[in-house]
Amino acid sequence: MTVSITPVEGLPEIREGDDLAALIAERASLEDGDVLVVAQKVVSKAEGRVVRLAEVEPSEEATDIAAGTDPRQIEVILREAVRIVRVRPPLVIAETRHGFVCASAGVDASNAPEPDSIVLLPEDPDASATNLRDRLRELAGAEVGVIVSDSFGRAWRQGTTDVAIGVAGIQPLLDLKGLRDPSGYELHATVIAVADELAGAAELVMGKTAGVPAAVIRGFDARGGGSARELVMPRERDLFR
Amino acid sequence: MTVSITPVEGLPEIREGDDLAALIAERASLEDGDVLVVAQKVVSKAEGRVVRLAEVEPSEEATDIAAGTDPRQIEVILREAVRIVRVRPPLVIAETRHGFVCASAGVDASNAPEPDSIVLLPEDPDASATNLRDRLRELAGAEVGVIVSDSFGRAWRQGTTDVAIGVAGIQPLLDLKGLRDPSGYELHATVIAVADELAGAAELVMGKTAGVPAAVIRGFDARGGGSARELVMPRERDLFR
Repeated sequence: MTVSITPVEGLPEIREGDDLAALIAERASLEDGDVLVVAQKVVSKAEGRVVRLAEVEPSEEATDIAAGTDPRQIEVILREAVRIVRVRPPLVIAETRHGFVCASAGVDASNAPEPDSIVLLPEDPDASATNLRDRLRELAGAEVGVIVSDSFGRAWRQGTTDVAIGVAGIQPLLDLKGLRDPSGYELHATVIAVADELAGAAELVMGKTAGVPAAVIRGFDARGGGSARELVMPRERDLFR
Repeated sequence: MTVSITPVEGLPEIREGDDLAALIAERASLEDGDVLVVAQKVVSKAEGRVVRLAEVEPSEEATDIAAGTDPRQIEVILREAVRIVRVRPPLVIAETRHGFVCASAGVDASNAPEPDSIVLLPEDPDASATNLRDRLRELAGAEVGVIVSDSFGRAWRQGTTDVAIGVAGIQPLLDLKGLRDPSGYELHATVIAVADELAGAAELVMGKTAGVPAAVIRGFDARGGGSARELVMPRERDLFR
């Protein structure tokens, strides 16, 4: 029962309007039950979620936070944020409209399509995943799960891990509640964020500089329905708001 | 360049004093460069890091926090904690002496070796990993990396993912600082917690109830030196203390 993770290699630079599913289907052999993990950056670029900094007028608040870095970039971050969680200029940890808490509200200048532009998160990453899944069914005839992934920092731990910000055709959480361990002890509180573990596993073959923005995971049964919003801690259970 | 993750199946119930490396070497084919991920629970059991609740006298504080659950278990958690981060009875989020912030200071009643006992984190999980690595070199003749993993919750996100709490023979963080993306943008802040992504990937084949406490990851070059303490956010950079 080996799980394999294979990079989708040879993808061109992605531009607005590109048929990302078609570009992937040409380069990956997809089978029913596979999970395709696609980096948010290329999904956002295909969807045109790019802001040209020349068109941004920074507020005073943005200029303060920028602390000498580009205030236009901070301005875009503030616009993408629904709640600022922490600021240590020029670092901003914010909650996005999707409910994700992450650095820069998911706004990122690396791997942008042109100099002086920055990339936003997809408007609705679950819908992005669903669109990719539907189109891949059409093109490859395969029923695959899709995860849109992004690199998030974590409280208390160094380094980023890739997590799921959009899903389609998979169950993002595996709830073991009511199951028992081999000695009969009930696993009360055990809910595993499998979509995040799948996204992190895919990152291992993607690499930030290798230009591999997608990977296929085979051998793990994640089939089901759900939304990446299930991965967001509900406000009433969140001890770290 | 496919990465594969294979469970180590058929391990017996682990008891104090067991030669865990030997039990694994008999059931896994290990090659140079593989990463062996072993669940903390079996490492702790082999090391005798088990407390019998009958021998624990709960303090008043523990009884308050327990809120009707077993105060002896809370007492053990408080003893394992160097700092309490959040309490919502009976849930305790605490920092362990290793610097990890996690639920119950890593103390866990599931999969304990006998009823009314609970399992603590290894005293020094890096040393546990090093011991396993050294013994596997002896037994299997292979130079493998070792990760001791545990399931941690996360701030703001639902569900646990497995992370590395001890490492040997691998580089826990991949630092891309100074590298450039394909368009020349420098990846300033990009440090990837590969050890955590490897631990999470291994969890996909381990499963909490399947009784598979170890997995072999092949095809990912994590070779290097380091300590899981590198994965702990240094106090001066921690925005969430």
